[in-house]
Amino acid sequence: MTQATFPAAPDKHALEEGTWLAPRFGSDGLVTAIAVDADTGEILMLAHMNAEALARTLETGEAWYWSRSRGALWHKGATSGQVQTLVEMRVDCDQDALLLRVRVGGDGGCCHTGRRSCFYRRVVSGPEGPVLEPVHSAHENRAV
Amino acid sequence: MTQATFPAAPDKHALEEGTWLAPRFGSDGLVTAIAVDADTGEILMLAHMNAEALARTLETGEAWYWSRSRGALWHKGATSGQVQTLVEMRVDCDQDALLLRVRVGGDGGCCHTGRRSCFYRRVVSGPEGPVLEPVHSAHENRAV
Repeated sequence: MTQATFPAAPDKHALEEGTWLAPRFGSDGLVTAIAVDADTGEILMLAHMNAEALARTLETGEAWYWSRSRGALWHKGATSGQVQTLVEMRVDCDQDALLLRVRVGGDGGCCHTGRRSCFYRRVVSGPEGPVLEPVHSAHENRAV
Repeated sequence: MTQATFPAAPDKHALEEGTWLAPRFGSDGLVTAIAVDADTGEILMLAHMNAEALARTLETGEAWYWSRSRGALWHKGATSGQVQTLVEMRVDCDQDALLLRVRVGGDGGCCHTGRRSCFYRRVVSGPEGPVLEPVHSAHENRAV
């Protein structure tokens, strides 16, 4: 396998205003990726990509991530069927974050707990400090 | 100033299913925070919080981040007027990412380039590899 590489932007203007995809991988070799439902805008999950995961995602049109817990490339849905088909990828101003608009295969889930979205709890004030409560309905679970 | 602290979840079940806000700050002391428009669901920006930024956000109802480039706490909008008023905060399954649903003050912008959202470019295929093109309209700029 050849090592996936991406160019480095020569300056701040090229980074922010240019037409080069020049991702700024961190010292751990990763950029952050946010996956959202392409149709509803629901925030599904946050994960990380190294250069190889990003290259495979662009080549295959399906989301690949880098699993930090397993230390391995991760073709999302390869075993669960919850493949994320890429509808659009966006990059942020300083190119250290990616936004993936996806359609999810299989049962439509994204979270390893079985839920559709990983963001299934909200923070509310309790008498002894912040606590969590479930976000109940599918509608409420949309970030819209 | 007292040091902001949050509990650590005693086990995986408490982390994922419990009612404790037990953020898992990384080795750099940070969790990732995604800010979205509370009304439209548009993804506005991705930033980071340390314990102090998270505590101040919960106390004040306005988004505070940790600026990695400046190495300092960052009250978003303190100089620009683009204060992010918190409507709801969610946490993900393993509590290393936060989702902030916000309403943006001032001119409504979030990005230091002057744009409303930091995600103003999409990745498209070019003859020599992936390139970026602008996401033009306000409508298209919504992740819905």
